[in-house]
Amino acid sequence: MKKIAVLTSGGDSPGMNAAIRAVVRKGIYHDLEVYGIYHGFHGLVNGNIEKLELGSVGDIIHRGGTILRSARLPEFVNPEVQKEGLEQLHKHGIEGLVVIGGDGSYRGANALTNLGFPCVGVPGTIDNDISGTEFTIGFDTAINTVIDAIDKIRDTASSHDRTFVIEVMGRGAGDIALWSGLAGGAETILIPEEKETIDNIIDRLNRGKQRGKRHSIIVVAEGVMSGVKLAEQLKERIDADVRVSVLGHIQRGGSPSATDRFLASRLGARAVELLLEGKGGRAVGIVKNTIVDHAISEIINQPHKIDNEIIRLAKELSI
Amino acid sequence: MKKIAVLTSGGDSPGMNAAIRAVVRKGIYHDLEVYGIYHGFHGLVNGNIEKLELGSVGDIIHRGGTILRSARLPEFVNPEVQKEGLEQLHKHGIEGLVVIGGDGSYRGANALTNLGFPCVGVPGTIDNDISGTEFTIGFDTAINTVIDAIDKIRDTASSHDRTFVIEVMGRGAGDIALWSGLAGGAETILIPEEKETIDNIIDRLNRGKQRGKRHSIIVVAEGVMSGVKLAEQLKERIDADVRVSVLGHIQRGGSPSATDRFLASRLGARAVELLLEGKGGRAVGIVKNTIVDHAISEIINQPHKIDNEIIRLAKELSI
Amino acid sequence: MKKIAVLTSGGDSPGMNAAIRAVVRKGIYHDLEVYGIYHGFHGLVNGNIEKLELGSVGDIIHRGGTILRSARLPEFVNPEVQKEGLEQLHKHGIEGLVVIGGDGSYRGANALTNLGFPCVGVPGTIDNDISGTEFTIGFDTAINTVIDAIDKIRDTASSHDRTFVIEVMGRGAGDIALWSGLAGGAETILIPEEKETIDNIIDRLNRGKQRGKRHSIIVVAEGVMSGVKLAEQLKERIDADVRVSVLGHIQRGGSPSATDRFLASRLGARAVELLLEGKGGRAVGIVKNTIVDHAISEIINQPHKIDNEIIRLAKELSI
Amino acid sequence: MKKIAVLTSGGDSPGMNAAIRAVVRKGIYHDLEVYGIYHGFHGLVNGNIEKLELGSVGDIIHRGGTILRSARLPEFVNPEVQKEGLEQLHKHGIEGLVVIGGDGSYRGANALTNLGFPCVGVPGTIDNDISGTEFTIGFDTAINTVIDAIDKIRDTASSHDRTFVIEVMGRGAGDIALWSGLAGGAETILIPEEKETIDNIIDRLNRGKQRGKRHSIIVVAEGVMSGVKLAEQLKERIDADVRVSVLGHIQRGGSPSATDRFLASRLGARAVELLLEGKGGRAVGIVKNTIVDHAISEIINQPHKIDNEIIRLAKELSI
Repeated sequence: MKKIAVLTSGGDSPGMNAAIRAVVRKGIYHDLEVYGIYHGFHGLVNGNIEKLELGSVGDIIHRGGTILRSARLPEFVNPEVQKEGLEQLHKHGIEGLVVIGGDGSYRGANALTNLGFPCVGVPGTIDNDISGTEFTIGFDTAINTVIDAIDKIRDTASSHDRTFVIEVMGRGAGDIALWSGLAGGAETILIPEEKETIDNIIDRLNRGKQRGKRHSIIVVAEGVMSGVKLAEQLKERIDADVRVSVLGHIQRGGSPSATDRFLASRLGARAVELLLEGKGGRAVGIVKNTIVDHAISEIINQPHKIDNEIIRLAKELSI
Repeated sequence: MKKIAVLTSGGDSPGMNAAIRAVVRKGIYHDLEVYGIYHGFHGLVNGNIEKLELGSVGDIIHRGGTILRSARLPEFVNPEVQKEGLEQLHKHGIEGLVVIGGDGSYRGANALTNLGFPCVGVPGTIDNDISGTEFTIGFDTAINTVIDAIDKIRDTASSHDRTFVIEVMGRGAGDIALWSGLAGGAETILIPEEKETIDNIIDRLNRGKQRGKRHSIIVVAEGVMSGVKLAEQLKERIDADVRVSVLGHIQRGGSPSATDRFLASRLGARAVELLLEGKGGRAVGIVKNTIVDHAISEIINQPHKIDNEIIRLAKELSI
Repeated sequence: MKKIAVLTSGGDSPGMNAAIRAVVRKGIYHDLEVYGIYHGFHGLVNGNIEKLELGSVGDIIHRGGTILRSARLPEFVNPEVQKEGLEQLHKHGIEGLVVIGGDGSYRGANALTNLGFPCVGVPGTIDNDISGTEFTIGFDTAINTVIDAIDKIRDTASSHDRTFVIEVMGRGAGDIALWSGLAGGAETILIPEEKETIDNIIDRLNRGKQRGKRHSIIVVAEGVMSGVKLAEQLKERIDADVRVSVLGHIQRGGSPSATDRFLASRLGARAVELLLEGKGGRAVGIVKNTIVDHAISEIINQPHKIDNEIIRLAKELSI
Repeated sequence: MKKIAVLTSGGDSPGMNAAIRAVVRKGIYHDLEVYGIYHGFHGLVNGNIEKLELGSVGDIIHRGGTILRSARLPEFVNPEVQKEGLEQLHKHGIEGLVVIGGDGSYRGANALTNLGFPCVGVPGTIDNDISGTEFTIGFDTAINTVIDAIDKIRDTASSHDRTFVIEVMGRGAGDIALWSGLAGGAETILIPEEKETIDNIIDRLNRGKQRGKRHSIIVVAEGVMSGVKLAEQLKERIDADVRVSVLGHIQRGGSPSATDRFLASRLGARAVELLLEGKGGRAVGIVKNTIVDHAISEIINQPHKIDNEIIRLAKELSI
């Protein structure tokens, strides 16, 4: 193998640049030429491909977003479109591809591998909703951004004795809500994986109030219901000043945390090793603090699981 | 004068604690006893008053919110209620009061002064919408919080070539939007003080696109229209991926910036001096980088003005 | 078991408060009374002990340092002094003790356990130099503080084409240097566990320069040599503008990261469970992303090991 | 005037990029061509000059350091060297120059102006030691970096009941020490402009201790004496655990604060206006919250003054 390429696809996440840097440097360390494909699979199909040098990835490890930019290309499920991508790779003499992204990106990587082109997936998404890895690149930065927001909101909640509903990202996965809620000291955490009735939530708020708690923070994943809707339901039933904050897109940005840069460096480097070892069609991940890899085809059909121990702990500590 | 008191009222803002600390330390420096009134005018009326020592304000200069907590008491416009407050002050032997807050708080301070009790107002609000001062305590921290959010959103905007609408606080005053938009490098800034048509905004977006700009950030003060509504209008008329982020309550919190701690220290200390000089009914402020004071009665009837030079500059730099 | 206590000892680390909070809340969840011992073993011997309630640990999860304060008491190796501590515990009816700290603190906990009093150790130190756990509470925050400093220094290094030596904490353990150096994109990382000659360092700097690198960052653990000394040696032998920055005590402070709050919550809660299960003399830790426990007596005699895979990765990515 | 140029010189400071951006955009707004000169006067003499477009200054407003890089060229006092610079400017058809930097940079700008080439100085230095302006670009960011460090150190100081000496930048000017000390709540602030005896410092520490203060923070400007030396003197004479932290180069870096971006934008834009008005040989600044300009020749011969009111306030609040 002489030439490999790397692209980022789907929603961007902090640490993608650190992963790109690792792919490029690890590749050059092994005397490979490394190409960057811009705008994800969209750029692949359109031949938006450039050679990357050591200098191309200088001073990017600390930057949010992705220097390769990202895009979604739903049409890439179409075998005709996949073949166009393949042609571009062949045209540039590229023999292996690292795809950094989430579930949708993995499907593209799997399709290309099935067409005989070795791809390795690197889990880059803030949602931590990829199977085969305990943590995805960007998740740690996202929860740090969320707890920073919770800390700020706590200032004003405690100054005014208010109940705050904070809506965080997570359509299908509650990891951001669960981790940031626990680390942020939230009284109630609502995640898609575990339904809670509004009665339960109100019971807890009332118990807290009886114990002298004057302010309260509720973290809700967007997949459960909108923060605005939850706040409305609460206002109808409890005697408290309820406010809502929807954190939104700030969760995707920012300079990556040390943990994300570290994880991205390890995973990006391992992806290159897999290509060198002739192992296409794999997705790298971290499991039990060890870098591992699984077949992408398995990963994309497995649901993500939340850690029930953490759910239990969150409840015990928020009495 | 032997005993003075301090309270915070209305929406909390970062730096209120630094102002409280300054009042207490400056008071004690001049051999006064200083009392803290909790929960604003609500606590005043209910006699929620405690003596503060040097140690009471130790290690608070860097904390957001207000250790005295805050509240709104609309009933304080009622002279009967004002008299109840007055009685509490007399009961504790307090001879002067520092009121830290916004416009509504100043009205309370003015009412008490009119009843013969000397009050001094200190401008504490993130909105920068108080007359008689070029900057209010909390404004600098708020705009730093906003530009941090803009920087994060820019990561994802530039990775995806998106147009972002960022809604910031400011019902009647555009200062947060204007300053943070200029400092955040926003392409378009919408403030209540200057109406712009949707056509104008779209023209600018299109011109930017023609010049090769692939992403764009629009900062809108909540007083102009909601970010969601603006995004909807834009989506109908331009060919771009438009997203919206409502920053909300994080703008009120956080550790105060150096500038806010500094300003709060100067204003809090000056408020005590005014009481000692027998000058009740004044509001302190900073004008032309000098600590000044005006009659509260004037301040509460003057509209806040935005700096037209800054509006012009923002336009020239966002070409 | 009805009453337990908790103390923090040795150098403070961010997340200790989150661990204290977890001990208190988990204890109360299981209907225990929980006591706080102030100033570590010093306070234990002197009976500086107070009951903690849910409210005692409210709004502390995000605070650096330790609300129980810390101290060193070298005399605690003396059995007479240990017995004084024991008497205080008995006097208050306390039946189990959670000790949060580093190696020295563990020795105290082990001594008390050997005297028949069940103690559980929780690893709280920024140095990540405790055996039996892959991560200690405070380490993640410390490396985030270091990479924030590296990012700032990179600004000025790249603006002036300078070589920067950054000295970080770590007398015997290179983990802070290794992780922050890798995550900070340092060109050279010097750790006590692996000696490198000055010739090697200079070779690498020269190779980088030939490849067009105009600035360079060297992270050195204080246990290798002082940053000032290293900079002097470099200045004598290379033609570059070499500057040095000793990060010092800022590495110990700051609001704990999400990961540290999370780890502290899990470890603190597990420590209480161990006491309830009648398992004194254990130290909790995280190994392979699972909460584990070992005999303290083993832990204090085992050297900490650095991950050689990470050393290799750091070298490959810093070509 | 058709073509102007901009350079940064001397020590870099956060906000220089915002100033460069303002010069470029304001210039293009007025239909000028704007050139960037790399590596300060060194690059000027060597013809390291490139045309800048709107896109050249996109996404830089939030970045520390300077994209034009900086350098010192002591030889620029030599008229022969100045003429070489002049030739390069003429060769590119450049008719006016904006010089962003400190005192030394202003001398270069003044020399060129005296040779008939119109230059305008923009004060860019963290030290706030330029005459003719109350604030320099970078000062606000630097003091925010310092108070963030003080906040971190306070965590550990209060956990261990320690006295901390924090050395900050400022050889001849005490502004960083004074502002950050006041905003950081330091008990003692030592600046070059006002000598204090070690006896005084010790008196204050002892008085604080008697009042129950268990930890203490002393901020010392490097121009007074080194933090290490001060700590040694204190250790000899007081019974306290004294530690020292030298903040060093982190003070120069980091993303500029809102205030610095704002000031840089205003000053950079005004500098272009002055060139357009045919007013070379001026230095812009902010005085009494108004953008002003003075003759560079005056500025470089005037000493910087510290605000005595602030010194007094710092003393009164640190009782």
